[in-house]
Amino acid sequence: KKTLNIAVIPGDGIGKEVTPVAQAVLEKASEGVIDFNYTNFELGAERYLRDGAILPDEELEEIKKQDAILLGAVGDPRIKAGILERGLLLKLRFALDQYVNLRPTKLYKGVTSPLANPGDIDFVVVREGTEGLYCGAGGAVRVGTPNEVATEVSINTAYGVERVVRYAFELAMKRKKHVTLVHKKNVLVNAGDMWQRIVDKVGEEYPEVTHDYLHIDATTIFLVSNPSRFDVILTDNLFGDIITDEAGAVVGGVGYSASGCINASNEYPSMFEPIHGSAPDIAGKGIANPTAAVLSTAMLLRHFGYDDIAARIDAAVEADIAELGSTKRGTEQVGNDILARL
Amino acid sequence: KKTLNIAVIPGDGIGKEVTPVAQAVLEKASEGVIDFNYTNFELGAERYLRDGAILPDEELEEIKKQDAILLGAVGDPRIKAGILERGLLLKLRFALDQYVNLRPTKLYKGVTSPLANPGDIDFVVVREGTEGLYCGAGGAVRVGTPNEVATEVSINTAYGVERVVRYAFELAMKRKKHVTLVHKKNVLVNAGDMWQRIVDKVGEEYPEVTHDYLHIDATTIFLVSNPSRFDVILTDNLFGDIITDEAGAVVGGVGYSASGCINASNEYPSMFEPIHGSAPDIAGKGIANPTAAVLSTAMLLRHFGYDDIAARIDAAVEADIAELGSTKRGTEQVGNDILARL
Ligand SMILES: CC(C)[C@H](C(=O)O)[C@@H](O)C(=O)O
Ligand SMILES: CC(C)[C@H](C(=O)O)[C@@H](O)C(=O)O
Repeated sequence: KKTLNIAVIPGDGIGKEVTPVAQAVLEKASEGVIDFNYTNFELGAERYLRDGAILPDEELEEIKKQDAILLGAVGDPRIKAGILERGLLLKLRFALDQYVNLRPTKLYKGVTSPLANPGDIDFVVVREGTEGLYCGAGGAVRVGTPNEVATEVSINTAYGVERVVRYAFELAMKRKKHVTLVHKKNVLVNAGDMWQRIVDKVGEEYPEVTHDYLHIDATTIFLVSNPSRFDVILTDNLFGDIITDEAGAVVGGVGYSASGCINASNEYPSMFEPIHGSAPDIAGKGIANPTAAVLSTAMLLRHFGYDDIAARIDAAVEADIAELGSTKRGTEQVGNDILARL
Repeated sequence: KKTLNIAVIPGDGIGKEVTPVAQAVLEKASEGVIDFNYTNFELGAERYLRDGAILPDEELEEIKKQDAILLGAVGDPRIKAGILERGLLLKLRFALDQYVNLRPTKLYKGVTSPLANPGDIDFVVVREGTEGLYCGAGGAVRVGTPNEVATEVSINTAYGVERVVRYAFELAMKRKKHVTLVHKKNVLVNAGDMWQRIVDKVGEEYPEVTHDYLHIDATTIFLVSNPSRFDVILTDNLFGDIITDEAGAVVGGVGYSASGCINASNEYPSMFEPIHGSAPDIAGKGIANPTAAVLSTAMLLRHFGYDDIAARIDAAVEADIAELGSTKRGTEQVGNDILARL
């Protein structure tokens, strides 16, 4: 029997409500095969408001010793935008070199898409997670004056791009064997050209995988007009952020979308989370849908090679949505319904 | 009787087919009030492929002397991405200081939206046009090697932001009095913070106008889940590019969307164009829909204060779409149908 050490960061708002459900599903599904050794980390808005700490070094070091991280959601409207995002969420992604941000997008049977004719939607976005405009390399002068200048710098390296491109092609081999590079190479010519060259080069090593290219603006059109055209979407940090939210909306809301921030070389723990936020408006009412959090545990299991257990969780969730997705249920109820299927 | 000197750049592909239709409508609608003095500029892919010229200085100087520019569409798959975009389209926007990129988005009666319940969609995107990631301030080292590093720099100035913010609030005063700032201020903290501060400051001068803020990722969700929430969307160059294409898709395709690149201080000519591209796949067949190009002439007229003539073109287009939008018609036929209503 294997033991996995998991750092649990429930975070804020509904994060604290959906994470225990996810843990319960994880345990039940893995019974007899994996033992989970959880360490809780109280990080997020509440902690910050209490003692000003965002992600202290000692806690980061503790997290680094774990096998993986289960994250709920982080954020609170009382805190200025950027503080928790850059101090906690992005700090984890960067410090743990989580260079693959993996975001499956699937329209489940039983979920209503806002599209009139959604078709069969089932693709994965492979978003780069450690470079681009997210690296914090910007600055400002004469702040608050009429002469203020503010910059944001996107840094992209062949090293960083090639490893995520390779991941996307490997993933495509296990799927429908098609990669779509999304960028804006007609304007961002330096970075775009590098991405395209590396995709072309790596693509030669995967003759069975076809690949094409779309501008980010055109991609937002196809996500609405023909989302079933996609298999693996490969893109940079900012564009990945943008299209995964649109994709989430197209499959009926980010409530069904999970996400993995993956260090694919396994030097540091990977992190799994629902892509929804802390939703302060519905927090504390016990009505948050834990489905995305549960799906993130399946991604965690797959990361460690437990594909069969992951598949059972996915199947339970899928059956639950198909049968009961349109009924009004509380967080606990959805959890129990999924548990009952395992 | 007033004379307007118009630089006409039909460009490539269907640009050459829809532009004459737009000119015919412009003339008919303005009969007895405005004379149009056209100067044709052969710029675009064909010119570039023939003699390597993209936008020669003398031609740019000639264009500067005109009152406005009517552009068709530019682009050809044989030309490497970025050459015409940066050398022609963006060069015009930057050289002519067209700092307001105005993109009305409206779901016309008779057009089918891909959304199941689109609601009443009628908003305008005010996109900054001369700064941000579009300024070309990036570079690359060790190109083609495993040590390549490519950067893209977003430059934002209080001067550049404030003028477009002001434009958005003025526009909101003539509409439903609501401005939504779209950015990613939780990650792009330097630029995002400046945008927000300037919006807050200018907003105080317009107490009748309410304003809110959305992250770009959340915006892509609302454009699908609740597009009627928007009145005036105010955003930077890159985010504006992205959401206007998604918005175009949501209202049934970019074939109904026109765009103005406006120098609102009138130092240089403004430019009006359909937002669709040159569409090489359907070029030369006489089947391109000239509606967006026609709508761009109404924007041109409004720019010069001819609101009544513009309204007549808009009304003719609206009636045409409502009555015949779902029928199969060629470029010329649509033009004639619209002309007949004027
Ligand atoms: C909260 C924010 C920093 C984050 C991002 O932009 O990556 C979120 O939007 C996401 O997609 O995970
Ligand atoms: C062609 C391209 C440079 C341009 C842009 O990105 O601005 C286009 O997409 C647009 O929206 O006008």
